[in-house]
Amino acid sequence: MENEKRIYYHNTDCGGVVYYAEYLKFLEEGRTLYLEEKGISVKELMDHDIFFVIARQEIDYKLPAFYGDILQIDTRITNISRARIDFEYEIRNQNNKTVAFSKTVLVCIDKNFKPMPIPEKVRTKLI
Amino acid sequence: MENEKRIYYHNTDCGGVVYYAEYLKFLEEGRTLYLEEKGISVKELMDHDIFFVIARQEIDYKLPAFYGDILQIDTRITNISRARIDFEYEIRNQNNKTVAFSKTVLVCIDKNFKPMPIPEKVRTKLI
Amino acid sequence: MENEKRIYYHNTDCGGVVYYAEYLKFLEEGRTLYLEEKGISVKELMDHDIFFVIARQEIDYKLPAFYGDILQIDTRITNISRARIDFEYEIRNQNNKTVAFSKTVLVCIDKNFKPMPIPEKVRTKLI
Amino acid sequence: MENEKRIYYHNTDCGGVVYYAEYLKFLEEGRTLYLEEKGISVKELMDHDIFFVIARQEIDYKLPAFYGDILQIDTRITNISRARIDFEYEIRNQNNKTVAFSKTVLVCIDKNFKPMPIPEKVRTKLI
Repeated sequence: MENEKRIYYHNTDCGGVVYYAEYLKFLEEGRTLYLEEKGISVKELMDHDIFFVIARQEIDYKLPAFYGDILQIDTRITNISRARIDFEYEIRNQNNKTVAFSKTVLVCIDKNFKPMPIPEKVRTKLI
Repeated sequence: MENEKRIYYHNTDCGGVVYYAEYLKFLEEGRTLYLEEKGISVKELMDHDIFFVIARQEIDYKLPAFYGDILQIDTRITNISRARIDFEYEIRNQNNKTVAFSKTVLVCIDKNFKPMPIPEKVRTKLI
Repeated sequence: MENEKRIYYHNTDCGGVVYYAEYLKFLEEGRTLYLEEKGISVKELMDHDIFFVIARQEIDYKLPAFYGDILQIDTRITNISRARIDFEYEIRNQNNKTVAFSKTVLVCIDKNFKPMPIPEKVRTKLI
Repeated sequence: MENEKRIYYHNTDCGGVVYYAEYLKFLEEGRTLYLEEKGISVKELMDHDIFFVIARQEIDYKLPAFYGDILQIDTRITNISRARIDFEYEIRNQNNKTVAFSKTVLVCIDKNFKPMPIPEKVRTKLI
């Protein structure tokens, strides 16, 4: 799943580049659109007290991104286990250069922040 | 009530100055500390399903603020009516120059987003 | 000029709604797309040391916006004078309800933060 | 080096907890204060065209943090090589529970985004 992300002033810092925490917002957007494409609505899950929280996040910054850039967020799932989903991403700029690689570990929890197995109807849509 | 706010990279944009929306975060912090000084905890109110939402916000930007600046947020209440509180702020930099003037209108609501009178025990602390 | 804005987790706060400062980011996006439609690139202006800074911002919050909402940002210019542009916006949700009204005063400045007349080639594109 | 970070609405999301990208802002603040304690001003370095950029960031989220929490950011340097500094952090809440562990790899660059050796006067202050 690939989606576009345009860079505005609010994504940048006084170093003249995209601030390093902003990329995590782009990744959230990538994950949401990925799940949606598979027919999974994060909003609907929330309404059923099923939440996915971030357990781990890593990101390698390869090149800076700048105001006006149009980034491509390429999101995919690399592993699904009982209560956990592993995402991987590559972010490229409009010149097709890699800006960042990243990985996220999501864990499925209930409304008391306790891990729970990923519901079967979610799992079948992901595989 | 006055509080200090130090400017980090994450508050700035590629124009080299503090991004215009960031000031609204500083104002939230000013309001919270102001209320706290009066013995009012926003968190405790939330636990009792009493919320204050922003109905109106205005801000005049007088001077840019920069990375490393230490801003002073001066917060005061100018009016309290049945369900509404008016805040005013002046933000100054470390050279005592005015960076911005601002006003916020807060409205007291219940958990269904319906306006409700400011609870008497809150009101008495504010006057 | 109208553009769509989808609401993600990163736009919301623990009150369950879009955080009040986030709207100012949506307005930046609205202004940028408006200017672009008129053939004006903020990036190109920056490269020529022509900047537009926010002198004043006001916003009336009418209804909360929520995770998953698709907002419409309707941006227009209401006045242009020597060094100043006035923008107005209406933000509506997917049910066509008004979420917020807002106004921005932009001032044209040079790289020393001094006001300068709006360059003629910019002005002619706006009128 | 330890510093305190109070959680406001603007740090949280509609899941009711601190948004996962916000922690990276706290880490920036931790690094800045750490360097400052060693007599190094990021601002002064910038004025001399010496920049530190993030090459890699990883973070393990152990417990959620909430509105009103007072977090402790414990920042330390674990390694310094020619052009690179490794930071490690532990973030704990007011109950002394670990909220997150994190690591950052910083690389020293010049104004053309090219890696450069960490200046000797900076290095001596860090060791």
